Amino acid sequence: MSASEFELIQRHFSELGSRRDDVLLGVGDDAALLQPTPGEVLALCVDTLVGGVHFPQDAPADSVGHKALAVNLSDLAAMGARPAWATLSLTVPTADEDWIAAFARGFGDLARYHGIALVGGDLTRGPLSVSVQAAGFVPRGRALTRRGARPGDAVCVSGTLGDAALGLCLWRDGRADLDEDSRWLVDRLHRPVPRVSLGLALRDCATSAVDISDGLAQDLGHVLQASGVGAQLDVDRLPLSTALVQYAAREDHLTQAMGGGDDYELCFTVPRSCLHKLDAIASRVGVQITRIGTIQPDGGLELVHADRSPARLGKAGYTHFDAS
Amino acid sequence: MSASEFELIQRHFSELGSRRDDVLLGVGDDAALLQPTPGEVLALCVDTLVGGVHFPQDAPADSVGHKALAVNLSDLAAMGARPAWATLSLTVPTADEDWIAAFARGFGDLARYHGIALVGGDLTRGPLSVSVQAAGFVPRGRALTRRGARPGDAVCVSGTLGDAALGLCLWRDGRADLDEDSRWLVDRLHRPVPRVSLGLALRDCATSAVDISDGLAQDLGHVLQASGVGAQLDVDRLPLSTALVQYAAREDHLTQAMGGGDDYELCFTVPRSCLHKLDAIASRVGVQITRIGTIQPDGGLELVHADRSPARLGKAGYTHFDAS
Repeated sequence: MSASEFELIQRHFSELGSRRDDVLLGVGDDAALLQPTPGEVLALCVDTLVGGVHFPQDAPADSVGHKALAVNLSDLAAMGARPAWATLSLTVPTADEDWIAAFARGFGDLARYHGIALVGGDLTRGPLSVSVQAAGFVPRGRALTRRGARPGDAVCVSGTLGDAALGLCLWRDGRADLDEDSRWLVDRLHRPVPRVSLGLALRDCATSAVDISDGLAQDLGHVLQASGVGAQLDVDRLPLSTALVQYAAREDHLTQAMGGGDDYELCFTVPRSCLHKLDAIASRVGVQITRIGTIQPDGGLELVHADRSPARLGKAGYTHFDAS
Repeated sequence: MSASEFELIQRHFSELGSRRDDVLLGVGDDAALLQPTPGEVLALCVDTLVGGVHFPQDAPADSVGHKALAVNLSDLAAMGARPAWATLSLTVPTADEDWIAAFARGFGDLARYHGIALVGGDLTRGPLSVSVQAAGFVPRGRALTRRGARPGDAVCVSGTLGDAALGLCLWRDGRADLDEDSRWLVDRLHRPVPRVSLGLALRDCATSAVDISDGLAQDLGHVLQASGVGAQLDVDRLPLSTALVQYAAREDHLTQAMGGGDDYELCFTVPRSCLHKLDAIASRVGVQITRIGTIQPDGGLELVHADRSPARLGKAGYTHFDAS
């Protein structure tokens, strides 16, 4: 690291996020020293966003900072973990201080909102890329994993599906700023809201959870595989935003909802006996929850309409995803 | 992540490193679930290596895997922490499975040697870059930081200095394979040995420690600044390898030893009352330790010869680094 890079880190990253009593030594030494929460388990995740791959190279710097942390908080949310600390590796092509300051603002605002401290940082020169690691805590035995879905459980999702993928199309086409709906869709892409409170609330009732980063079909597929079960989804119940309905062609809705990544909603399974709790949870955490299907003993992922007729996915036209 | 990338991760990264009882859930869910060591403090660090910046693009894949973990273990060593877990974000331009397998071998061999489990992974497509986070434990109040150097303490370094920077010159010039010395120097660049055992042993006597990643002058400068002290170094005592003496011009020795990065030796300070312990520590952990100077109340970093005459740094010709 050059002396000027050291100063840049000091200036923008040394006190990012919240102050926490469990941070004994933060940014600025060879490693941070942290006091784990006694009696709880540490949940640790990492996610890297590469410019031009995971976000447009011209995405606003503050949204890149926001998103890099958000996708990791989304992972912790999917485990039912309460976030505590994050580390950040930022690689930038040039030491553009305005860009770095805006990035730090986006990252820091979200960190403070969730009471997270940035405890380690690393600023390097190279192709634009951000790698964030987040750490949180969950009482032992109460974490949500991908392994617990059981036949008969309801499959649920938070929020709406496919918005971010559509937002990316609008952004790429230079149609981000057409109206309120287009701006909202692009915001869903650039500034995903990690469902942290929902994840914590689901500890009491969900049998499995995953966050939707690669699209519902693929991410639910991981749950089905890890749990050794299948699922039947009623595609007519997939929650779509009015903005998506406005901007996506009718025949693309299903493909968008099943395959669109980057939404960072949670997909989770709940035993029937707990379904009655979901309304209260949804209103408490301020997120819509929709029951979209049922876990089956096997058979991969089956898509049907409300009348049980098979559903077809846009041009691809297949009705089964192989979960194996 | 595409399905094939998911399979690549499964195949090469799902069981990398050691099995540990404190890993309740490893690679393959949204986050790992880990059991912190009761009564100890978590040391957490992150370091990113960018291809073409921190290592040559054509460096052997296994050495890139080794080095990406080694530089983080070096940070934990500088804190006196016992390493436990690591996460890995690997960004590669193409899914070249041979390269990835060799990378995983280099990473995994070093992880197993130190009893570390890889608990989180992330494989993305993009310009070659590796970001590793390492976590370890240290009893509360016994970590080595950069803040504890006191006037009168001896300044010591492990191993020899400047080898890796010279190794880089040889590699770039296509002179890596001339003889045993040249191969050894290049190995110092590609396969640094993190001084983990030394860091643990120093808990009993060192007042501060830092690892030498950016060159002795700069890294010791951080210690001086954090501790609010200065230092006088006797440049005639700087430990040089016979390979460096063989390959570097006489007039470059000092610059190479003071400014050469990537050695990943430890620089640490020890009260005079503890100096007698160092020989035993050096032979126990199998690393040479050299006393190179003394901490002063102030005055930045002063370089002198054995006869106390000022030393000059090669072409730059300055004798003081400003530690502020």
